Amino acid sequence: MPSQPRPPAQPVSHRGRRAGHSGTREALLDAARDQFADHGYDGASLRAIASQAQVDPGLIRHFFGSKQDLFNAAMEDRALITDRLMAAIAGPQDGIGARAVDAYLRLWEDEDTSPILMSMVRSAMTTDHGADLINEVIVARLAPHTEIGIDSEPARQITLAGAHLLGVAVSRSILKAPPLVEMSHEELVEALAPMVQETADRVIEALSGRDSGV
Amino acid sequence: MPSQPRPPAQPVSHRGRRAGHSGTREALLDAARDQFADHGYDGASLRAIASQAQVDPGLIRHFFGSKQDLFNAAMEDRALITDRLMAAIAGPQDGIGARAVDAYLRLWEDEDTSPILMSMVRSAMTTDHGADLINEVIVARLAPHTEIGIDSEPARQITLAGAHLLGVAVSRSILKAPPLVEMSHEELVEALAPMVQETADRVIEALSGRDSGV
Repeated sequence: MPSQPRPPAQPVSHRGRRAGHSGTREALLDAARDQFADHGYDGASLRAIASQAQVDPGLIRHFFGSKQDLFNAAMEDRALITDRLMAAIAGPQDGIGARAVDAYLRLWEDEDTSPILMSMVRSAMTTDHGADLINEVIVARLAPHTEIGIDSEPARQITLAGAHLLGVAVSRSILKAPPLVEMSHEELVEALAPMVQETADRVIEALSGRDSGV
Repeated sequence: MPSQPRPPAQPVSHRGRRAGHSGTREALLDAARDQFADHGYDGASLRAIASQAQVDPGLIRHFFGSKQDLFNAAMEDRALITDRLMAAIAGPQDGIGARAVDAYLRLWEDEDTSPILMSMVRSAMTTDHGADLINEVIVARLAPHTEIGIDSEPARQITLAGAHLLGVAVSRSILKAPPLVEMSHEELVEALAPMVQETADRVIEALSGRDSGV
């Protein structure tokens, strides 16, 4: 029942609120994020989600409607991802690379955001769910700069840098490529910051020739 | 029955050989590559593979044993991937970046190798199958340089470059990030070659200080 009115979206601080009506909804969202993160969209079963949340599977339909509605609700906090990246990018241009990579790697380590990223990436591999959300996250912040077409140089630079970081995060956190697993957070920041800094410099330079800043 | 003797591995040239005993085996391998590529290891069903190959599902067990044995057999051609990359890297040091990126992107476009890459990547997201093979492909060629530990700078450089390229290929071919989909093969080579060239230069420099060349 996707058209059924749902409680308004609220900042979700998970882990721990289990009592009463909103406790059940929160427990289902926590369980959904865990299961989607571990198994991807196709692999996660509603039965396993309900079981982990210790509620009747029928409550999923009651609270969320379809599996895809549940997925979308579980991913509602994805704004955290762009918010934190944008907060890291704000500030002196010199140092954007290191701050952005540091923030990006933390997103994959933080218990609030890593299940969202894992869910999106694992789901995106075999369904459009997840892929659409990732593309939205990567290009969402281009929207205010409506003059930036997808075939523009800034859009390409930003997307290439995002793809680079995604490849490293996937290789480290999912594929567990030995050399990347062995590297510390700080070593990875040092290795990746120059690429992101160069991208930032190029994008800022390209945009400064237009009517808006970054 | 994983311990059952199997026909010796042979160079597989797929698509089109369907007659007789080896035709059935080939048809099953083709179907397996297609289904693993589209759905990943967990999502691919033996029933769908047998159906696509137009054979009885029991023949999968007869020819290959378990699902994982079938997966490994279907991925047997993965040596093509490292072979083609190594062929591209051979030659003048100047231009390794462009040649390697060109070869890498072709691997994702070629009908012999793209199902292997898609199968490995999609499977790797939710199981260790695939991840192990990808790590093997990325680091296999380090093995001859046994002095290169996984925490050495050359190993890190090569793995980071591999992760970068993987991120771009995944973003383009699976996530279908609009700016990357819009870019041509040639534009991508131009954008990525400098990063790979820099990696190659650093690795060659690091290795030239040791007892073996590249």
